[in-house]
Amino acid sequence: MSASLPAIILAEPQLGENIGAAARAMLNFGLTELRIAAPRDGWPNPAAEPMAAGAFEAGVQVTVFDSVEAACADLGYLVAATARPRGMEKPVTNAGGAVDWLKAQASRTGVMFGNEAQGLHNDHVALCDAIMTYPVNKAFASLNLSQAVVVFAHAWGEAAGQGGRFEGTDAGVGDVASREELVGMFEHFEYELERAGYFYPPDKTPLMTRNLRNAFIRGQWTSQEVRTFRGAVKALAIGRGKARIKRED
Amino acid sequence: MSASLPAIILAEPQLGENIGAAARAMLNFGLTELRIAAPRDGWPNPAAEPMAAGAFEAGVQVTVFDSVEAACADLGYLVAATARPRGMEKPVTNAGGAVDWLKAQASRTGVMFGNEAQGLHNDHVALCDAIMTYPVNKAFASLNLSQAVVVFAHAWGEAAGQGGRFEGTDAGVGDVASREELVGMFEHFEYELERAGYFYPPDKTPLMTRNLRNAFIRGQWTSQEVRTFRGAVKALAIGRGKARIKRED
Repeated sequence: MSASLPAIILAEPQLGENIGAAARAMLNFGLTELRIAAPRDGWPNPAAEPMAAGAFEAGVQVTVFDSVEAACADLGYLVAATARPRGMEKPVTNAGGAVDWLKAQASRTGVMFGNEAQGLHNDHVALCDAIMTYPVNKAFASLNLSQAVVVFAHAWGEAAGQGGRFEGTDAGVGDVASREELVGMFEHFEYELERAGYFYPPDKTPLMTRNLRNAFIRGQWTSQEVRTFRGAVKALAIGRGKARIKRED
Repeated sequence: MSASLPAIILAEPQLGENIGAAARAMLNFGLTELRIAAPRDGWPNPAAEPMAAGAFEAGVQVTVFDSVEAACADLGYLVAATARPRGMEKPVTNAGGAVDWLKAQASRTGVMFGNEAQGLHNDHVALCDAIMTYPVNKAFASLNLSQAVVVFAHAWGEAAGQGGRFEGTDAGVGDVASREELVGMFEHFEYELERAGYFYPPDKTPLMTRNLRNAFIRGQWTSQEVRTFRGAVKALAIGRGKARIKRED
């Protein structure tokens, strides 16, 4: 399984905080292999721990290398994350495209991120097969290192995972009410409104009714909500329990 | 223009660092309206500045509200970012889907993120029209607040922006060599290899040639690269300048 997950390679990172935050972001979306090439402040780095929020203990494996080249040595396909054009003839894609390309490889793969000060060196981009870039605001293009990692990790998670839906079934629109239930509710509601003298002047009744129905329809109510609302209408109209009024109808 | 950009609402955030990092992430992808509802440590917060990397000066507008309700008061469509099912009948989508839904609104819109400790309260989710969720690793589901913001901001940038490509034209695969150029290069290469005695045993020549050609073809070389390689073959075969050898052919 690990052979099919891309390694995340941090090329000469500076701040332990960013390494920790990158590890957390990776594990949030199921990535577990973190390679740190020539970290400025060495490794382990105590500044990484609080930002990792337990990611190292929970599954992110870290390997430290002396150089970026060494960190890539066993990989067969590499993507460079960079916001700047490099004048190099390499295919360029976005985060989702990079995921597709990575998943298509039979070899071990990696995604390389540059350091906080300069991003990736051209020499390191040249080691890669493809460039991944994000649609950044040109006036404010420099992403935090761990933010760059989470954008990729999320794209990986989308391709690998649940398509952005909860696995549970208790959220989301389910059990949408039928038109029959809705019309029954409308007629009940309108009957009580009519009885209460709501529709005035009388010639406006069709318009007012239609507007009300449209407002409810847009809500895509469930059957349960229809029942709840009918109970509310009934309660308003005739009261419940001791407040119940006697009517002939 | 600002009416069409969603506001980012941080509901009762705790750490200034996360507010600053969220602001940076927003501006990275062109979002500029940050609403802070009841920040635990007040506002302004000096801890936000270093993580913002200048985003407040460069365009992110901050408004502070006493409550989440007040922060949403003027908005017509709201998305709640949450990793947990809530048992509420609301439509659920992923980051890209949330962008689509937000863009379809005529009213002012917002995306609400919960705080570091608990995420969004159910009462705040109930204020929203829809739920946005990310395909998180269930064993490690809790995202850093600013990481959650950047995933949405990136999705917004993808829909609004350049589709993940550089605006410049000097990167990416351009000027791909024609088959004619490639075949000319192959024949040149193979001629020199043949002459150099490379193909041995001779009956393996077709297979070796095909394998070589396939390897080059996969590289999607440009015309310039074809010319460069032909120069290299020529140099290897007959030398250049003073190293040039005389041959009859």
